[in-house]
Amino acid sequence: MATIHDIAVGAAFNIVTAVAFLLLFAFLRLQPVNDRVYFPKWYLKGTRASPASAGATVAAAKYINLDISSYLKFLSWMPAALKMPDDELIQHAGLDSVIYLRIYRTGLKIFVPITILAFAVLVPLNWTNDTLESLKVVHSDIDKLSISNIPYGSKRFIAHLVMAYVFTFWTCYVLMKEYQIVAKMRLRFLASEKRRPDQFTVLVRNIPSDPDESVSELVEHFFLVNHPGHYLKHQVVYNTNKLAGLVEKKKQMQNWLDYYQLKFERKAERPTTKTGFFGCFGSDVDAIDYYKSEIEKIGKEEAEEHKKVMKDPKSIMPAAFVSFRSRWGAAVAAQTQQTSNPTVWLTEWAPEPRDVYWNNLSIPFVSLTVRRLIIGVAFFFLNFFYVIPIAFVQTLANLEGIEKALPFLEPFIETPSIKSFIQGFLPGLALKIFLILLPTILMFMSQFEGLVSQSSLERRTASKYFIFLFFNVFLGSIVTGSALEQLNTYLHQSANDIPRVIGVAIPMKATFFITYVMVDGWTGVALEVLRLRAFIMFHLKNFFLVKTEKDREEAMDPGSICLYWSEPRIQLYFLLGLVYAVVTPLLLPFILVFFALAYVVYRHQIINVYNQRYESGAQFWPNVHLRIITALIVSQLLLLGLLSTKGLEEATPALLVLPVLTIWFHKYCKHRYEPAFVRNPLQRR
Amino acid sequence: MATIHDIAVGAAFNIVTAVAFLLLFAFLRLQPVNDRVYFPKWYLKGTRASPASAGATVAAAKYINLDISSYLKFLSWMPAALKMPDDELIQHAGLDSVIYLRIYRTGLKIFVPITILAFAVLVPLNWTNDTLESLKVVHSDIDKLSISNIPYGSKRFIAHLVMAYVFTFWTCYVLMKEYQIVAKMRLRFLASEKRRPDQFTVLVRNIPSDPDESVSELVEHFFLVNHPGHYLKHQVVYNTNKLAGLVEKKKQMQNWLDYYQLKFERKAERPTTKTGFFGCFGSDVDAIDYYKSEIEKIGKEEAEEHKKVMKDPKSIMPAAFVSFRSRWGAAVAAQTQQTSNPTVWLTEWAPEPRDVYWNNLSIPFVSLTVRRLIIGVAFFFLNFFYVIPIAFVQTLANLEGIEKALPFLEPFIETPSIKSFIQGFLPGLALKIFLILLPTILMFMSQFEGLVSQSSLERRTASKYFIFLFFNVFLGSIVTGSALEQLNTYLHQSANDIPRVIGVAIPMKATFFITYVMVDGWTGVALEVLRLRAFIMFHLKNFFLVKTEKDREEAMDPGSICLYWSEPRIQLYFLLGLVYAVVTPLLLPFILVFFALAYVVYRHQIINVYNQRYESGAQFWPNVHLRIITALIVSQLLLLGLLSTKGLEEATPALLVLPVLTIWFHKYCKHRYEPAFVRNPLQRR
Repeated sequence: MATIHDIAVGAAFNIVTAVAFLLLFAFLRLQPVNDRVYFPKWYLKGTRASPASAGATVAAAKYINLDISSYLKFLSWMPAALKMPDDELIQHAGLDSVIYLRIYRTGLKIFVPITILAFAVLVPLNWTNDTLESLKVVHSDIDKLSISNIPYGSKRFIAHLVMAYVFTFWTCYVLMKEYQIVAKMRLRFLASEKRRPDQFTVLVRNIPSDPDESVSELVEHFFLVNHPGHYLKHQVVYNTNKLAGLVEKKKQMQNWLDYYQLKFERKAERPTTKTGFFGCFGSDVDAIDYYKSEIEKIGKEEAEEHKKVMKDPKSIMPAAFVSFRSRWGAAVAAQTQQTSNPTVWLTEWAPEPRDVYWNNLSIPFVSLTVRRLIIGVAFFFLNFFYVIPIAFVQTLANLEGIEKALPFLEPFIETPSIKSFIQGFLPGLALKIFLILLPTILMFMSQFEGLVSQSSLERRTASKYFIFLFFNVFLGSIVTGSALEQLNTYLHQSANDIPRVIGVAIPMKATFFITYVMVDGWTGVALEVLRLRAFIMFHLKNFFLVKTEKDREEAMDPGSICLYWSEPRIQLYFLLGLVYAVVTPLLLPFILVFFALAYVVYRHQIINVYNQRYESGAQFWPNVHLRIITALIVSQLLLLGLLSTKGLEEATPALLVLPVLTIWFHKYCKHRYEPAFVRNPLQRR
Repeated sequence: MATIHDIAVGAAFNIVTAVAFLLLFAFLRLQPVNDRVYFPKWYLKGTRASPASAGATVAAAKYINLDISSYLKFLSWMPAALKMPDDELIQHAGLDSVIYLRIYRTGLKIFVPITILAFAVLVPLNWTNDTLESLKVVHSDIDKLSISNIPYGSKRFIAHLVMAYVFTFWTCYVLMKEYQIVAKMRLRFLASEKRRPDQFTVLVRNIPSDPDESVSELVEHFFLVNHPGHYLKHQVVYNTNKLAGLVEKKKQMQNWLDYYQLKFERKAERPTTKTGFFGCFGSDVDAIDYYKSEIEKIGKEEAEEHKKVMKDPKSIMPAAFVSFRSRWGAAVAAQTQQTSNPTVWLTEWAPEPRDVYWNNLSIPFVSLTVRRLIIGVAFFFLNFFYVIPIAFVQTLANLEGIEKALPFLEPFIETPSIKSFIQGFLPGLALKIFLILLPTILMFMSQFEGLVSQSSLERRTASKYFIFLFFNVFLGSIVTGSALEQLNTYLHQSANDIPRVIGVAIPMKATFFITYVMVDGWTGVALEVLRLRAFIMFHLKNFFLVKTEKDREEAMDPGSICLYWSEPRIQLYFLLGLVYAVVTPLLLPFILVFFALAYVVYRHQIINVYNQRYESGAQFWPNVHLRIITALIVSQLLLLGLLSTKGLEEATPALLVLPVLTIWFHKYCKHRYEPAFVRNPLQRR
């Protein structure tokens, strides 16, 4: 049992680590050599140039910051990150990023008042009992602050009931306000933007094949007849895999040409290269001439391939982007059913060009439903049975196995210290690798399902990841057991018992989750700002690969908000906060620190680092909302289970009202606000 | 335990009853005096006239059929009912009626092959065991034909497994074909009809209030701006309760006037009436003059009220019917979102005029969601706790209570034979009354929910009624216990145990359900064709109230298919058939007889009797489909529960695949066909 002292030590350790990371970051970011790691966004915007090209400064100053005064203000980036107003931030980084930050702000809005109230009401109420002492059970001070310290059948539980109501209403109130604001921001964003082509364009899929007409003619006739006066033009989708390869190859050649021309300019001596594999074998030729001729050759191939694709009916996919004269016409086409057969001529708003996921545009309708079934079943098995293959890998990957496969390693492995290290480390390795790969695996699953835009892929993957985290991290830590064992338990327990069993275990796991918040939340966020991976990769590439200015551009990896990876993890904190708000309020401050720190860090990253790959106009907000509501309902059910063992008979009916009201609230919000995220209204302004 | 002999006796008894009813019907329908009871549809169509007005026949022949040859062909109505081709029937009775008949045909299509297969494969397989005899348990011959007769762990269960697959695939195949046909029929029906106003009209609700403009101006401006070129005109909805009262009163007066004028014509003496209460008190006046002046007076009042309503902004409701120049314009307006606020300017296809449920047109959005919550909770309590108030009424309605309230009845009640009758009858009475009133209660609940068309009200009520039947009749008979006790059981049992407990009880209840099918199905249908209630009511009215030809028209009550009452009951037979197909195939022939008989009877009623109140274009089919799918999944889960106790380990995973596939099939059908029932496509033909 962890005592408050243990927690304090853990907190101190994590705070020190986090602060160390932040200090390291403050130091590294001031070095000009790291400029492209920590400020790539500004380079992409064109407002910053490489210090290398500045030229006039001292050579050392190009790499290291010698201005001591700037070190003194090492935390200055924090207020700087907070300064930029929302409107400017939308201009700078897009609406998606701004609304992503709102998730953290929503966390603060929900949990600051809840924390204050819980500490004002529940903590004194829990503390002023001596149930745990009188029972002489092993307990820590944290348990004294939790609901466990209230005696069986005490009337004090009424305070917890009331608080559950207050917390629910407050959460719902904040959620509604936020939904309202986000919806308004989205609509304003869509309306205020310049005439974006995707606002006039509809994606048509499953165009039926016609023996007499090409896809292009078919589309034109169909829309001329059915949307006369609104139809403007259309663009058929081609399968251009080969062409894309040629374009890529030409780009590489161009880069080599640039490199040699630069070399030539500096050395005034025509460089040579070898024609063979990677320029290493074969006969020497004049490099500039060689690459010039290569580029010309590929250019011709490209033109030929282009012609071929345009002619070949097989490379035309049964999908097209149809543009309309007015937003109105596009809105009409996107929202209505075109023919009596609802599986052909499927229309929807076109995703913006960057957002399109091209591979999935031509999947036929029946195939789509079959794919969905397959992924549904596969995800179920992944979620509940993932431990089986991992256990299998673990039995393979033992010391003897390695020694057999790679016998020359034997003397090395048999060293006692290394042996014990491997024995302690290896079993967890397969699991660790799996967990790191998991979001990517889930993304592959979503891609297989056949969604047509990056943003919808991310949203779908986030849902899957959240479900996985809920069962395997949240419930897995409470019930202690793999999801497979849990599944067995759930199937064999009554609907009544499940929340009770989990609910009763909740107060006991508070210290575990506090540690989790500190390690995964605090330190994780501090690591994010450091961008260790991008830092190492950039310097490695810069050292070994970068030849031209363009290479340097490409070595710079601004990254972007990985919604499908990070949003479900935030939701885990919402879940923990809401579940423990009534049970063990001590957890709340830790979550508050996480939200505050993450808000500042991600704001800084969005301003200075990330470069969003697409702009969906905050279409992910309904999912965020839904998951917070889910967390709220889970917290209510678990509290219900917990209180049903505490001897307060009135508790069960009183608490049963809450999930019903919450579900109703969700339905109301869904009707009221969700359409703004799915459709565009017709009204003219 | 019922033996096959018992069942045979029961069947014989029910067959005799049903045949007696059919004979009685065959006799009664031939009497001209009952013409308006058994052929009202033709009167409403105007192709038949009252025998009373025919005049030339003998007086007796006006009332009794003396043509003996017609009695010999007493079953001739059956082939006659089957003769009319579908297209003509659609012309005659509307698409709703024809598709309603398709439900019975679907039943036959599903169950005829299943019955044959079950009797060819499963019955011999079950019969050729002697488990029950060797176990020496009390059993009947029916149990020998059921799955109970197969020994624990036998490989013969594989046949049942395979049959479960075959039955599922066959059912799904039939369902898909039917969905396809019905969708096509609906689209053809909509397209082939004359230009119906509702195909050009959209119902707009929740029009926001504007201080500067009236609702009418607002609607006009809004649609002129947002649907230019398509908008034609609109009709605001007025609250005209008072006006409707006046119109009703005028109609009555007109009827009286007609009556006295007829009297005057026949007797050539001006009739008089009294001005007071119901023409019984007050001074004598000339009746014709009196009613003429009264009609004139009311006519003036009407005109005044009409003017007042048109002027008074309070009587204008925030709803309007907006007509468009083309079906295309209406389709666009109905399917798109109008403004950025999705709770105002809600558009949907206007129900056809007869179908509108006027009372609900002006309920604001928030109120709608609150109402839905209230009804959801209320229905939950009705479904699971309805026994409580009934038990309460039963404790009140005992003999002592009656004696106290109505002391003069005491000597009568105290007669031993009457006392025992009342004591046996009274406790069940409250329940019986409740069950008879239930569909009406559910209809009230749906009305409160705020749906705007009769057809959607019927559909919603049917869903509620099916849920009630499922829990209280189907599960209630199997688990034996009120739904409240069941709820308790379900909450305290694991998800694994529930299908097992119910599944194991299923073979034992086969005889009960066979009896149920005979009593409720066979005899019930025979009673329906007899139209006992309409028969009695018509003759009573004809004798006491009918004064004019118009009164006679009104005394005639053709009735209509009560979808919300009858469809869920049919679904109960689907459920029974699918559940028992594998377990006790003996039940299947009884269900087949029901479907066949009901098909003929309802076809006859639809041709000769019913007068549909509205035409929804078979919009109820998706619900029918959904409920058969539900029945299929329930049957699979219960079979899973049953087989899990039979010692065949492979059964559980093999059967678990079925519900997953069925749910997927349902999703596929929903995507593929349902849109045809909700929206109208845009494509021009």
